[in-house]
Amino acid sequence: MSRTLIVTLAQLTERHRARLRAAAGARGFTVVFFDTEAEAAPALAEAEILFSQSGRLAGQAPRLRWQCTPSAGVNQFTDSSLFESGAAVLSNSSGAYGVTIAEHIVMVALELMRRQQDYAQVVARREWTRDLAVRSLRDSRITLLGTGDIGQETAIRLRAFSPARLVGVNRSGVNPRGLLDQVASRGQLPALLPQTDLLILSLPGTAETDGMLDAGRLSLLPDGAILVNVGRSNAVDQQALETELRAGRLSAALDVFAQEPLPPEHSLWSCPNLLLTPHVAGNMTLPYTLDRIVALFLEDFENYCAGRPLTRQVDLKRGY
Amino acid sequence: MSRTLIVTLAQLTERHRARLRAAAGARGFTVVFFDTEAEAAPALAEAEILFSQSGRLAGQAPRLRWQCTPSAGVNQFTDSSLFESGAAVLSNSSGAYGVTIAEHIVMVALELMRRQQDYAQVVARREWTRDLAVRSLRDSRITLLGTGDIGQETAIRLRAFSPARLVGVNRSGVNPRGLLDQVASRGQLPALLPQTDLLILSLPGTAETDGMLDAGRLSLLPDGAILVNVGRSNAVDQQALETELRAGRLSAALDVFAQEPLPPEHSLWSCPNLLLTPHVAGNMTLPYTLDRIVALFLEDFENYCAGRPLTRQVDLKRGY
Repeated sequence: MSRTLIVTLAQLTERHRARLRAAAGARGFTVVFFDTEAEAAPALAEAEILFSQSGRLAGQAPRLRWQCTPSAGVNQFTDSSLFESGAAVLSNSSGAYGVTIAEHIVMVALELMRRQQDYAQVVARREWTRDLAVRSLRDSRITLLGTGDIGQETAIRLRAFSPARLVGVNRSGVNPRGLLDQVASRGQLPALLPQTDLLILSLPGTAETDGMLDAGRLSLLPDGAILVNVGRSNAVDQQALETELRAGRLSAALDVFAQEPLPPEHSLWSCPNLLLTPHVAGNMTLPYTLDRIVALFLEDFENYCAGRPLTRQVDLKRGY
Repeated sequence: MSRTLIVTLAQLTERHRARLRAAAGARGFTVVFFDTEAEAAPALAEAEILFSQSGRLAGQAPRLRWQCTPSAGVNQFTDSSLFESGAAVLSNSSGAYGVTIAEHIVMVALELMRRQQDYAQVVARREWTRDLAVRSLRDSRITLLGTGDIGQETAIRLRAFSPARLVGVNRSGVNPRGLLDQVASRGQLPALLPQTDLLILSLPGTAETDGMLDAGRLSLLPDGAILVNVGRSNAVDQQALETELRAGRLSAALDVFAQEPLPPEHSLWSCPNLLLTPHVAGNMTLPYTLDRIVALFLEDFENYCAGRPLTRQVDLKRGY
C-alpha cells in the first residue's frame, strides 16, 4: 500500500503541485490535494503526512507521523495531544515569510515617517500642501524585538538606510549573521526603549511574550516613536497603545490584533496615528512566499524520508 | 567694508544660522537672513554671495559673484544673463536630496507592489479582505534612469532587497561606486524597457531628457510594470502615461507634473493605478536634508573663499 501525503493549500499553482507530486513519487508517496479541510476529511484515515495550516485535521488522522503547516505561527496547534504525545511531529514554514514581511515593515515605517496617510488626505482633497514635517530611517535608532528570519531580513534592508543603530532583542544573546550593532536581552528593554525611535516586533505568540509591551513599557518610548507589529498581538497591550496613539504621543503600524477579523465597530479602525493593515504582511499572495513554502516543505520531506530530524520542527511547549 | 552673504531660506533653524554666521565671520563676511525674496530686495545691491532658491534675485544684485541654490534643479535660472556672461557663477545643492528621495522611491515602489492604496480602501470600509495579489522587490528587474546622487542612494537601498538586477542608464557609461549590475546608454532603452519591472526616473529637466519616455517607449514596458518619477516631468509623456494607467497596463508613482500645482480639475487626481504625491519627495521638511544643504553650501563657501572651483557649479547650457 502506498504511503499518503495530504495537502490542503488552495493557493498552490499547478507548477507547485507538479513539484510535490514528483518529490513524493520518488519516495513512494501518493500526494492528494484538497482545497478545503472539509474535502480532506474523508482521506485523513490514510494520511502519514499532512501539509496543511489546519489545527483540526491531525486529530482525525490516526496514522499521522508528521504535519507541516505553511504558516510560521503555530498557536492553533497548542492543544493537540497527538503532537504532545510524540506520536507525530509538527513543523512550520518559518523562513518563508522573512522577505515579504521585511518589505512590509520597511514600507509602513517609511509611510509613517513620511506622513503618507496625511498626504493621501491632501491628495484626496486635490490640495497642494507640501510642508508636512517628515522623518527618515537615516540616523534613526531602531530596535528589533525578535531576531528570527523576519528580524534578520528586516535588519538587512534597514541597514542600507544608514540607521544610527540596529539593536536586536532576543533570548539567545546571539547576533545573527552579525547583522546587528548590539544584541540585548528582554531584561534590558526598560533601558533600551527610551533610546528607540522605531520599535519592530516580530515575536511568536507565547506565554513569554504576553504583554511584553504593557502600558508602562510603552510609556518609556520617546515622544514620536513608531511601533510596528507584524508578529502576534499578545506582545502589545492594544488598549494602552491606542491611548498613546490617540494622545498623538506615538504612531504605529499594526498588522495583527487581539481579535481578528477586527470587529467593524472597533475603535482602532478610526484611530489617528495608526496605519492599520488586515494581517497581510506575510500573505501567501506573493508568489515568492509560496515558492519558499513549498521549497522548505520539500527540504524537510527529504529529511523525513531519510529519517533525519526535521529542520523546522516546532517545540510546542516553547510555542515556535 | 564688509563683504555680504545674503540668505533667503526660511526653513533654516537657529542652529543652521549660527553655523553660517560663524563660517561667514571667519572669512570676513557679514551674513544677512531674509525669509522672503521681497524682504531681501533692498539688500541686494551689496550682495557678493546669494544663498537662495530664487531665480529673480541675481538680476538685482550687480556685485553678485556667486549664487548657491538650495535646490537640485536649476530650471528657474536658465534665462539669467548674469550667469551666462560669467560675471557670477551658479551652484546647486545636488547631493542633499539623495537620501530622502531614495526613501520616497523605495516607499512608493513597495506601496504599489503591495497594493497599499487598495488595502487603504479595504480598511476604510472596515473589511477584512486579505487576498490581493502582491509583488516584491525581490527578483524584480529594476532600471534607474539617472545615476546621480538620487540614483546612487536608491541603488544602495534597493540592493538590500535582492532585486534580479539593477541597471543604470546614464550618458557617462560610468558605474558609480560599482553600485549597478550594468550601465546602459539612453540608446539602449528600447532593448532595456521590455526587461524592466520597475523603472525609476531621477533625471534633470533638460532639452535632452524631454519626452524620453513617449507613448512608444512606454508601450515597450511589460504589462504590470511600475514607473516612478521623482525627477522632472518633462521626461515622461504625461498623457500617454495616463492612458496606460487607465488601461490598467502600468502603474506609477508620480511626484512631479507638467503643471504644478496640478490643477484641481486635472484628470490625474482620480487616475487609477497612480500613487500621486504633491512634489514632496525631496522636501526640506526633513531635518537631515536641511543639514546637508547647509553643509554642502559651507563646503563650497570654503572653496569660494580660497579661490578654488566650486564643487557643485552648474553648467547652465547642460542644465545641471
